[in-house]
Amino acid sequence: MSAHETASLLQLCRIMRPDDANIVGNVHGGNILKMIEEAGCIVGTRHCNAQNGDRCMAALVRVEKTEFLFPMFIGEVAHVTAEITYASQHSLEVQVKVTAENILTGAKKLTNKAALWYVPCSLKNVNKVMKVPPIKYADQEQEEQGRKRYEAQKLERMETKARTEEVVPPPSNPEDPPKEQYTVGYSQSTLIHLVGPSDCTLHHYVHGGVTMKLMDEVAGIVAARHCNTNIVTASVDAINFHRKINKGCVVTVTGRLTFVSNKSMEIEVLVDASSLVEPDKYRAVSAFFSFISLDKDNKPLPVPPLKIEGEDEQRRFDEGNARYILNKAKRLAAKERQQ
Amino acid sequence: MSAHETASLLQLCRIMRPDDANIVGNVHGGNILKMIEEAGCIVGTRHCNAQNGDRCMAALVRVEKTEFLFPMFIGEVAHVTAEITYASQHSLEVQVKVTAENILTGAKKLTNKAALWYVPCSLKNVNKVMKVPPIKYADQEQEEQGRKRYEAQKLERMETKARTEEVVPPPSNPEDPPKEQYTVGYSQSTLIHLVGPSDCTLHHYVHGGVTMKLMDEVAGIVAARHCNTNIVTASVDAINFHRKINKGCVVTVTGRLTFVSNKSMEIEVLVDASSLVEPDKYRAVSAFFSFISLDKDNKPLPVPPLKIEGEDEQRRFDEGNARYILNKAKRLAAKERQQ
Amino acid sequence: MSAHETASLLQLCRIMRPDDANIVGNVHGGNILKMIEEAGCIVGTRHCNAQNGDRCMAALVRVEKTEFLFPMFIGEVAHVTAEITYASQHSLEVQVKVTAENILTGAKKLTNKAALWYVPCSLKNVNKVMKVPPIKYADQEQEEQGRKRYEAQKLERMETKARTEEVVPPPSNPEDPPKEQYTVGYSQSTLIHLVGPSDCTLHHYVHGGVTMKLMDEVAGIVAARHCNTNIVTASVDAINFHRKINKGCVVTVTGRLTFVSNKSMEIEVLVDASSLVEPDKYRAVSAFFSFISLDKDNKPLPVPPLKIEGEDEQRRFDEGNARYILNKAKRLAAKERQQ
Repeated sequence: MSAHETASLLQLCRIMRPDDANIVGNVHGGNILKMIEEAGCIVGTRHCNAQNGDRCMAALVRVEKTEFLFPMFIGEVAHVTAEITYASQHSLEVQVKVTAENILTGAKKLTNKAALWYVPCSLKNVNKVMKVPPIKYADQEQEEQGRKRYEAQKLERMETKARTEEVVPPPSNPEDPPKEQYTVGYSQSTLIHLVGPSDCTLHHYVHGGVTMKLMDEVAGIVAARHCNTNIVTASVDAINFHRKINKGCVVTVTGRLTFVSNKSMEIEVLVDASSLVEPDKYRAVSAFFSFISLDKDNKPLPVPPLKIEGEDEQRRFDEGNARYILNKAKRLAAKERQQ
Repeated sequence: MSAHETASLLQLCRIMRPDDANIVGNVHGGNILKMIEEAGCIVGTRHCNAQNGDRCMAALVRVEKTEFLFPMFIGEVAHVTAEITYASQHSLEVQVKVTAENILTGAKKLTNKAALWYVPCSLKNVNKVMKVPPIKYADQEQEEQGRKRYEAQKLERMETKARTEEVVPPPSNPEDPPKEQYTVGYSQSTLIHLVGPSDCTLHHYVHGGVTMKLMDEVAGIVAARHCNTNIVTASVDAINFHRKINKGCVVTVTGRLTFVSNKSMEIEVLVDASSLVEPDKYRAVSAFFSFISLDKDNKPLPVPPLKIEGEDEQRRFDEGNARYILNKAKRLAAKERQQ
Repeated sequence: MSAHETASLLQLCRIMRPDDANIVGNVHGGNILKMIEEAGCIVGTRHCNAQNGDRCMAALVRVEKTEFLFPMFIGEVAHVTAEITYASQHSLEVQVKVTAENILTGAKKLTNKAALWYVPCSLKNVNKVMKVPPIKYADQEQEEQGRKRYEAQKLERMETKARTEEVVPPPSNPEDPPKEQYTVGYSQSTLIHLVGPSDCTLHHYVHGGVTMKLMDEVAGIVAARHCNTNIVTASVDAINFHRKINKGCVVTVTGRLTFVSNKSMEIEVLVDASSLVEPDKYRAVSAFFSFISLDKDNKPLPVPPLKIEGEDEQRRFDEGNARYILNKAKRLAAKERQQ
């Protein structure tokens, strides 16, 4: 492997600690997403600076749908491998694999595969997008596949711009008469976070991974309130980072159930950012998280049905149902291709 | 100093880091409260175990009104000295002093004096309150003064039990038409925190200091939203810890402006806890925080007046005003006694 | 004790929390090293600024061999006492003692003694080394002993400069065919950390203690992979900090077994730093950590022998064996002197 090729590969590992996990010892999906993004940011930034011109920072613009194949536990070592797999003129794709290793037994399991898209922003002027140095492909087929993924995500990013106008759901009001259990309002939750220095990149913008961790946290609270059991992240739909969040902002993260199947819950999470000293407020990110409920042996439990109230909730439920059916079909197709 | 006396004294120090402070470098008052409580918990637990019987943990039940005399900055070393100053049969008083040292110039300033009340709870049965071993007093006068403080706080703890019934204010709803600036609703904020292992004592109950840090954080967001300037904690009224919060709980911390004088803001903070897996929800703590607004040279700025809407807000404003006048009178009286 | 003498003494204490420890509750040696360095940095910086001239920061250049006499546990209070014991013209020695106190039983045990060397760097120009103000010695003998320690460490720092050229081993790739158990390659581990603001001093350079914590973490992973048991840090050989690491760097920490005796493992840890946005990469620190394997009652277990492959591994094993024999002889000699 040449020096050039090595630079586009990165391995990161860390022992999972009690604060990384919930009370039964399952590592929060949000922490895994944060590690994935840290690895992607390092390998992306390193690659984009392997040229002359302004020094720059790889800013996360999109994460493709990510599945959580197995729960990870306290004491295990998480290995994160990130590799640059496609470079367009102004963006690059990083593919990341996460493996959990039990260092006492030696057992290893693949827990996640993720794909992230980054754009290099100049450190001098954060609004200036730099050129991405080309990468070498094993063969033309590989490059062609990358281009297809690039075009597909570009299209999807356009489409989701529209969704960003979705209004934030009203937070559940503790003064109101208590909501009926199993309704959307009953489990809806909001989390406020004041952005600190450790949340930020060299640009003083919030790391995409930090935002995803907050999103997973609120989604987890929603899911636990609905089921009253141990819950874990099963997957995250593609996330587009429309606008940067910077130091000193207050981030409001709201989660609400949109759809519930027999064994899973879909939670929509909306992230709004507002400066503490300026009046403006804007939608920074939104995404759908899926959670499952587990018993003491980490086996899936049935999820209580969702009580729908009103047209808006019904529309979102139907949309969630459509995504659920589509994802199921995609998984089946992928399985068949492998056979 | 005898071995016995030394055991009732504790010093703790720590360098203030970027994560402990806001963007202009002022250390959050909540971090100072957390260090104060950590010192109190160590010295209290150590003292209560200096006897036979069940091993026990000092649980915080009350913090007396605490003033923040000077702001502390990143890079300074905080020195926290805690001393047991009174012991009743089932509770003890710890007095704590905080000094900020600039290790570059050698300058030191007293930033806080605090008094905390602890109760020893058995590690075997957290509802069993243990006996407190007696302490030695310099003279009878000292013991007498301590007893007076003990009786006074006991009375106040009874009285505030009533206040715990105060309903949580409705969170500001981002879907509603935007609230008018300078109203109570405009700056009102809510923060949700999922309790993790590092927040907890050996009993798996949340450290009082962790709760105070969250309370200061939400109060700071309210104050900054009202002024749009750099704000710092000026004082915290006496806080009573009515009920314990345990591991795995979701803590909801809500802050709202109650009163504004020319140079200060009073923010009421209400803390509710609910188990993720049980339906019950309860008021754990409530308190009043005072904040001031500072310019670039750390000089106080005038605070915009509060626009009152409705009878409840007017009642709370009048009560806040009464506390403000009372505190001012107390400060004057204290000054005169010193002269 | 005079005001001057007081300034050269510092005490620091902290309760050990779940995140400071491994899954069986033993506090990571790296956390203790971090507290030791924090105390040394405060007392050193304070002393060097007790004079006119540029304000400066004490930068860690060397830690002498440190033994871990007893394991420390969650819930215990760590007391760290640091004292300046020698001052040359441009460097100073800080001796640190660590005591673990069980606040439930009152039991105390000395867990570590350490000696650290600092150099004062101007805050205006980090490459300018300032003069160190003289300290007072109890007698001439004390000063003479200090000078000898100073000369000895100066010599050793020269010698180890050579070792910094040792190449970093390629990280084990989780996708490669699995290595044979008990070989060097099987347990070798690499950890990558992106330096954040809380890792840094006022100069924006990484605290030596933060680096040592990462080194201990990777060495612990290596040791656990080799034994598949609970492991704890037994000692750290002298560490020289050749080059500073600054904010925004990526730190790569690699550990590999060099030598295994019947009851202990020696792990070499190499730390390389590289800027995210500049192409340079350099060796910042290297050190040897010794770990032991413990059973459920914290008694030492035998360590599986190491399978050596190739000449390089054999050479490093022989060197490790020589250090092991030398250390054993030194300990024996020290014991005899005490008798």
